[in-house]
Amino acid sequence: MSISAIDVIRTKRDGGALSDEQIDWVVDAYTRGVVADEQMSALAMAILLRGMDRREIASWTAAMIASGERMDLGSVPRPTVDKHSTGGVGDKITLPLAPLVAACGAAVPQLSGRGLGHTGGTLDKLESIPGWRARLTHSEYVAQLRDVGAVICAAGDELAPADRKLYALRDVTGTVESIPLIASSIMSKKIAEGASVLVLDVKVGSGAFMKSADMARELAETMVDLGTAHGVHTVALLTAMDIPLGRTAGNALEVVESVEVLAGGGPADIVELTLTLAREMLAGAGLADTDPAKALADGTAMDVWRRMIAAQGGDPDATLPTAPEKHVVTADRDGYVSALDAYAVGVAAWRLGAGRARKEDPVSAAAGVVMVRKPGDSVRAGDPLLELHADDAARIPAALDALDGAVVVADTAPAPSPLVLDRIGE
Amino acid sequence: MSISAIDVIRTKRDGGALSDEQIDWVVDAYTRGVVADEQMSALAMAILLRGMDRREIASWTAAMIASGERMDLGSVPRPTVDKHSTGGVGDKITLPLAPLVAACGAAVPQLSGRGLGHTGGTLDKLESIPGWRARLTHSEYVAQLRDVGAVICAAGDELAPADRKLYALRDVTGTVESIPLIASSIMSKKIAEGASVLVLDVKVGSGAFMKSADMARELAETMVDLGTAHGVHTVALLTAMDIPLGRTAGNALEVVESVEVLAGGGPADIVELTLTLAREMLAGAGLADTDPAKALADGTAMDVWRRMIAAQGGDPDATLPTAPEKHVVTADRDGYVSALDAYAVGVAAWRLGAGRARKEDPVSAAAGVVMVRKPGDSVRAGDPLLELHADDAARIPAALDALDGAVVVADTAPAPSPLVLDRIGE
Repeated sequence: MSISAIDVIRTKRDGGALSDEQIDWVVDAYTRGVVADEQMSALAMAILLRGMDRREIASWTAAMIASGERMDLGSVPRPTVDKHSTGGVGDKITLPLAPLVAACGAAVPQLSGRGLGHTGGTLDKLESIPGWRARLTHSEYVAQLRDVGAVICAAGDELAPADRKLYALRDVTGTVESIPLIASSIMSKKIAEGASVLVLDVKVGSGAFMKSADMARELAETMVDLGTAHGVHTVALLTAMDIPLGRTAGNALEVVESVEVLAGGGPADIVELTLTLAREMLAGAGLADTDPAKALADGTAMDVWRRMIAAQGGDPDATLPTAPEKHVVTADRDGYVSALDAYAVGVAAWRLGAGRARKEDPVSAAAGVVMVRKPGDSVRAGDPLLELHADDAARIPAALDALDGAVVVADTAPAPSPLVLDRIGE
Repeated sequence: MSISAIDVIRTKRDGGALSDEQIDWVVDAYTRGVVADEQMSALAMAILLRGMDRREIASWTAAMIASGERMDLGSVPRPTVDKHSTGGVGDKITLPLAPLVAACGAAVPQLSGRGLGHTGGTLDKLESIPGWRARLTHSEYVAQLRDVGAVICAAGDELAPADRKLYALRDVTGTVESIPLIASSIMSKKIAEGASVLVLDVKVGSGAFMKSADMARELAETMVDLGTAHGVHTVALLTAMDIPLGRTAGNALEVVESVEVLAGGGPADIVELTLTLAREMLAGAGLADTDPAKALADGTAMDVWRRMIAAQGGDPDATLPTAPEKHVVTADRDGYVSALDAYAVGVAAWRLGAGRARKEDPVSAAAGVVMVRKPGDSVRAGDPLLELHADDAARIPAALDALDGAVVVADTAPAPSPLVLDRIGE
């Protein structure tokens, strides 16, 4: 049978379902450069607007996994568990979570990415620690997983190269916001990583890519199905992302806050989400009888953190960079903080230098936003609400623009809202 | 205001209307290479699936015209009239029409294209005449228009370069079949050509790009609006393309048939459509009192043809190439030919060598299909229905495959069907 790129594009354009053969062919041919970028972007737009059914998504994901290697973690003696967040503002949960779950007896192989747009990247955060390096060889990676139990590093080029190429293309062609393409992108990488258990943190709200709970639930169900079909025990939590997580958004700022959590303190929402995700991961790994709260309290999670950072060249005792330029946003009336828009804070942190507009841009370690008050906190006129940190004062006005209207002070405190909205999976 | 390719793509993807500023920017930036092919193909797919309103189409067309030069034919003393066909099988009407209308007192500047897929190209047909060349300099072009009154040649690179680039992109990305993109592509070139009057022959039926009369009418109305808005007197005819025009499909074969028409003979449908289009063109040019039938009968149209061919290096008396390989398809019963599918004949002629699969492929001058019988003709079992002509006998089986079921012989003749289905314009 002869398959051509135009036939595949037309099939989807006209609302048809792609056959498994068409999907295998087009993903492989795109990876090899036989299908051109301009053909794949037209197909991606047709997929975005026409959708894919579950069989097509499964086939597309399998083809992306098959474009590279699927890692074998069989030599790691502990159960392997991984977590993925769809991205939010102030979401530093991976930093305390990976050492915490390792301290409880599982192995956590966490291949992470860099930030793009208004959400931060785990690797960018850890790179604010002097000496720490994101790139490991395969043998370093497996050795650290065996010896320390937790590793957070950059994904190598051998994992799902089709996804790497397609993700970069979608980023510049307005074809990111497609549930089939998002689900297959995340799951092809996560399945290829080789962990036996996967917990997904699917964010919903202004600071997330999924703005509605319905969309987030559809994404979560799609991903749980994909993981399960590939033999990975997969659970998804839907969690709120209308306000930022914790009290910081920025690279070094979030590392400092994560270390506070590992030291037994830190903001309540970060602690709650870290423990909830840890319990899901441990349950999936058959370690439901271990108590992650104890590992935070007794310092064993902190011990793993220090070993994990040191194993990758970082100094866990180093003083992290701080910003020379600070600007304080104050309350203009007495009352309670009733809203703090996550997207606005994310854009402000990005404009202050914590994020990048293009993949090749550098990021600032020190820049970001400190949320001195969060929804529910009482304030008096003149009290600080937010601190903006930057290397260069010239970045502050654009960050203030992003924050216009983002913080609301009202007469009464808002009703508390739940952090975990739903759970999908067995 | 800052405009980005992704914002433009997202606007259309999400069903919005593009602003004039967005359209001007994206067409210009694409022509300059600032917007990449993969971004424009995603936008083209979004336009295909979401549509564009008349204001957007007008703006898009104007931006494509502005990407190059608009020719000034003010130095041509006669009224300038042009014709465009959306393409059909056996459609050689331009060949007798251009000299005929010139013989009646108008000037016909006909910038034509090459064939792609199952429809033939006017330039490919004329190139079967020994010595004839399609490329003229601008001064040769204007001089021939003044001296002979008719010129059929290749469009230069300076006309609507945005369309040239976009057309090649659409061809490989499954984004051809969009009325806004088809209308703006045709009209940007035709308006840039500088003629004062334009008659559009919009084909409907199996052998046309528009399979339904509703689609063809929408395309015709869109194009008439575009021409009128740019000060070009524009009329469109909807004409039938369920069966091929005339009795030949192929390059030299169609030139021979055209010369028969210019000599006062030729198939009735070719003569009818040529005269109908000529009358529309002459009416638009203010020459409604001239009779094109007379110019066919008295040889003045043939005189212009001979001068037009000679002016471009062609020998009007040359013997044209004929094919060494012929295969005759015969009737398997007595009766009347009741159907002859235009698309099938077009594909057969293409496979025999008359057309090309890719722009850079050569075409055969001699290959094609002769329709010995057409719908309405009576036949006896064993009579020839079609003759297939090829340079290489190996091409014949695939052409026969295309023709499977395309000719139907029945007990009764079909009811005659009109050639001109509708007229749009003032």
